[in-house]
Amino acid sequence: MNYSMVRYVLFRLLRVMGVLLVLPFIVALIYREFDSAFSFLALIALCSIVGIIGSHKKPESKIMFAREGFTITAVAWIVMSMIGAVPFVITGTIPNYIDALFETVSGFTTTGGSILTSVDQIEKSVQFWRTFTHWIGGMGVLVFLIAVVPMADGYSMHLMRAESPGPVVGKIVPKVKDTAKILYLIYIAITLLEVVCLWASGLSLYEAFTISFSTVGTGGFAVTNAGIGGYSMLTQGIIIVFMAMCGVNFTVYYFLIHRKPKEAFAIDEVKYYFGTILVASALIGLNVYRSGLAGSAFNSFHHALFAVTSIMTTTGFGTLDFDQWPMFSKVLLCVLMTVGACAGSTGGGFKFSRLLIIVRNARNELNFLVHPKAVKRVYMDGHTVEGTTVKSVSAYLGLYVITFIVSTILVSLDNFDFPTTITSVIATMNNIGPGLSMVGPMGNYSQFSYFSKIVLMFDMLAGRLELLPMFIVLKPKTWRR
Amino acid sequence: MNYSMVRYVLFRLLRVMGVLLVLPFIVALIYREFDSAFSFLALIALCSIVGIIGSHKKPESKIMFAREGFTITAVAWIVMSMIGAVPFVITGTIPNYIDALFETVSGFTTTGGSILTSVDQIEKSVQFWRTFTHWIGGMGVLVFLIAVVPMADGYSMHLMRAESPGPVVGKIVPKVKDTAKILYLIYIAITLLEVVCLWASGLSLYEAFTISFSTVGTGGFAVTNAGIGGYSMLTQGIIIVFMAMCGVNFTVYYFLIHRKPKEAFAIDEVKYYFGTILVASALIGLNVYRSGLAGSAFNSFHHALFAVTSIMTTTGFGTLDFDQWPMFSKVLLCVLMTVGACAGSTGGGFKFSRLLIIVRNARNELNFLVHPKAVKRVYMDGHTVEGTTVKSVSAYLGLYVITFIVSTILVSLDNFDFPTTITSVIATMNNIGPGLSMVGPMGNYSQFSYFSKIVLMFDMLAGRLELLPMFIVLKPKTWRR
Repeated sequence: MNYSMVRYVLFRLLRVMGVLLVLPFIVALIYREFDSAFSFLALIALCSIVGIIGSHKKPESKIMFAREGFTITAVAWIVMSMIGAVPFVITGTIPNYIDALFETVSGFTTTGGSILTSVDQIEKSVQFWRTFTHWIGGMGVLVFLIAVVPMADGYSMHLMRAESPGPVVGKIVPKVKDTAKILYLIYIAITLLEVVCLWASGLSLYEAFTISFSTVGTGGFAVTNAGIGGYSMLTQGIIIVFMAMCGVNFTVYYFLIHRKPKEAFAIDEVKYYFGTILVASALIGLNVYRSGLAGSAFNSFHHALFAVTSIMTTTGFGTLDFDQWPMFSKVLLCVLMTVGACAGSTGGGFKFSRLLIIVRNARNELNFLVHPKAVKRVYMDGHTVEGTTVKSVSAYLGLYVITFIVSTILVSLDNFDFPTTITSVIATMNNIGPGLSMVGPMGNYSQFSYFSKIVLMFDMLAGRLELLPMFIVLKPKTWRR
Repeated sequence: MNYSMVRYVLFRLLRVMGVLLVLPFIVALIYREFDSAFSFLALIALCSIVGIIGSHKKPESKIMFAREGFTITAVAWIVMSMIGAVPFVITGTIPNYIDALFETVSGFTTTGGSILTSVDQIEKSVQFWRTFTHWIGGMGVLVFLIAVVPMADGYSMHLMRAESPGPVVGKIVPKVKDTAKILYLIYIAITLLEVVCLWASGLSLYEAFTISFSTVGTGGFAVTNAGIGGYSMLTQGIIIVFMAMCGVNFTVYYFLIHRKPKEAFAIDEVKYYFGTILVASALIGLNVYRSGLAGSAFNSFHHALFAVTSIMTTTGFGTLDFDQWPMFSKVLLCVLMTVGACAGSTGGGFKFSRLLIIVRNARNELNFLVHPKAVKRVYMDGHTVEGTTVKSVSAYLGLYVITFIVSTILVSLDNFDFPTTITSVIATMNNIGPGLSMVGPMGNYSQFSYFSKIVLMFDMLAGRLELLPMFIVLKPKTWRR
């Protein structure tokens, strides 16, 4: 392990945190929340000073392999959550540090599950920070670091791979640094576009920004107790469009900008992603309409589309309480939670591309048994998927199932009901936020024991970082020099 | 597809069914249930005549590959369930044919989930047949066929592989036919041993036989409404031992008979199997004891051991209603349902050997990321597991998860509660029987719609035959000449 490089990157990250915290500080000044402003300022100073001192000495060796990449990523996310929780505690919003940490991890991992029972009274700057964590976590702070800090391309690739979602990391352009920049530019553009749209639909500029952070990062923190259900149908419609957009592989936008629509729409998982949204919304819409729980047919399909998009993109916004819907809708939503969004998007979950590889690999195995001469290749996007990718996706499925099972057993010690126990793990591991029953759209995570909260925090981080970094960091072997 | 061979084996199977039905016929005569006796006799005559006519003409070609093996197995199990259901209908025990079919599929697949709300009033010969289906299905009717019908070894291997559980089928001796004979001899010996033990513990000879069939086949049908909870602690203890014995890979007994204890205990999954039984029983025993639901510490651990063994071996007998236990115990039992027993046993579930391969493969992937030069081999029982086996086990996990998800969505249309919906699929797919809530130890499957019952029947068959045959038979390609 190249400790000096790990040290260097982590202290550079502290400096970045210092810069990011300037935004809520400005918001605090604007809204004259001077106590909070002072808290943010103190934290900015601390992060900057410690960061500058710690990263002053350049690392002896800049060598960085997969091991360093995964370790840095895992530690970075834990450290930044620990720092990000501080404003909640010192402003008195969430006095308990474990609870504040839960809220921050939920923010950075774009889960959006809250331990707060009411969010109406939170100070505007703290609320801003809360939703801004979604935005930072959505595209990833290390991707940001790669874009702004000079680093050798061959090495920064390992950071990119550890933080970006999906079975294979596609560099959009040959250089990792440029890829990171392009991703962030698209990300910022989409965010600003949503801010404008929401503002035009009647939201205040403050709400437009905070809701956009929550949407574009596919997070799900709302800024009022009424949630998204309190906004007009138009606003809800805009949010549906932007949620759907951010669940898509960002490479699509790069292709579209460069007028390569053919390449953009040749990506298999994007087709299945939109197809699933439409089919699932139709089925749930029909199911909800027949149950009479959401009024007219239009309303039923509108709310079904909202719920499906919100769940599949792992945002977790709610308009209606789907915990009241018939079991078919609830089970289908739970399944969609697990599937999640596209690789290379800001959404979480198992990812469509992995699901496609799993399904096609299983189909191949069946074909092979019937026709032993059949070729055992898995195709995607018109190309053959490499055998090593199929193997690692299969291993990923194993790790995913094991994590789910062990977490559920641990959370069950709280002795809550069956849907709460199961869906709290599903909703955190896939970075959704709401599940069913006590953690349903009208519930929250406040009643869990600290032990369960720690388990669920691990699940949120494991889900966002796609398991490997969190497991690698736990292996003693990783830490050998 | 070699249709003539498929035809030939299926009609031979009919003849075997005719022979097997002689046992309940004799029981009917002993207990002077003459109406039932006549029903059984008529069915015996029908099976024998149709079977003899249909298998009179030898197949043009005896060639049989994996495709034929899987097809014959799937069709054979469906046909034998359809025939096995007839006695329930014509004796008036279960007037509705779909319900009777559900009960028979549940019997042959050794699931043990019932649609009957009371079993006390069932005629003794019909009850005998009901539990005898467990015994037939436990070791497998095609394994029986291989043992008694002359067939080329190279070809019968494909039948053996399609019907026997586990990721790789270990021939105990070089010849498939001899392997089948040895398996059935061990199976009969264990059954008779249990009959003697149960009889000695105070059960009537009739009960000793029927309960032994249910135990040794790891089925779970009880013959009284009181279930196993109505018997003495001694009887319950005997049943624990025999359940545990039948969840073990039968190769172990072959080694033990031939005084090779070293080889017997070198099998990895057997160690993990017994280890898991002990650890899980201790944890659940403690959890139940602390909840005060099962009285004294001894009682708590006794019932925990019973429940764990019953669930892990996928038998499904119950002494206490574990649906009343704390959530930790319930979740742990659900997990054990999914894990199941050892490969090469009469138990169902995902199987310990597959789980070990999945876990070790995932661990390898993690090691590989940290040390790219690490060797990516999976070891089991001191040997390297072949890459193709790892691949097919991974594909199996994919198929397993997909089957579980699709079935749960379909069953959710019945709009029952969350635990009922989820655990009805878990309990059928893994051939357990009882789940939680409405399908808990005190519940049954009577309230499901016919649609759900058909889905669950598919799951039981898919679980018992380990997915592949049921999926291969659904592929149109399979049926091409």
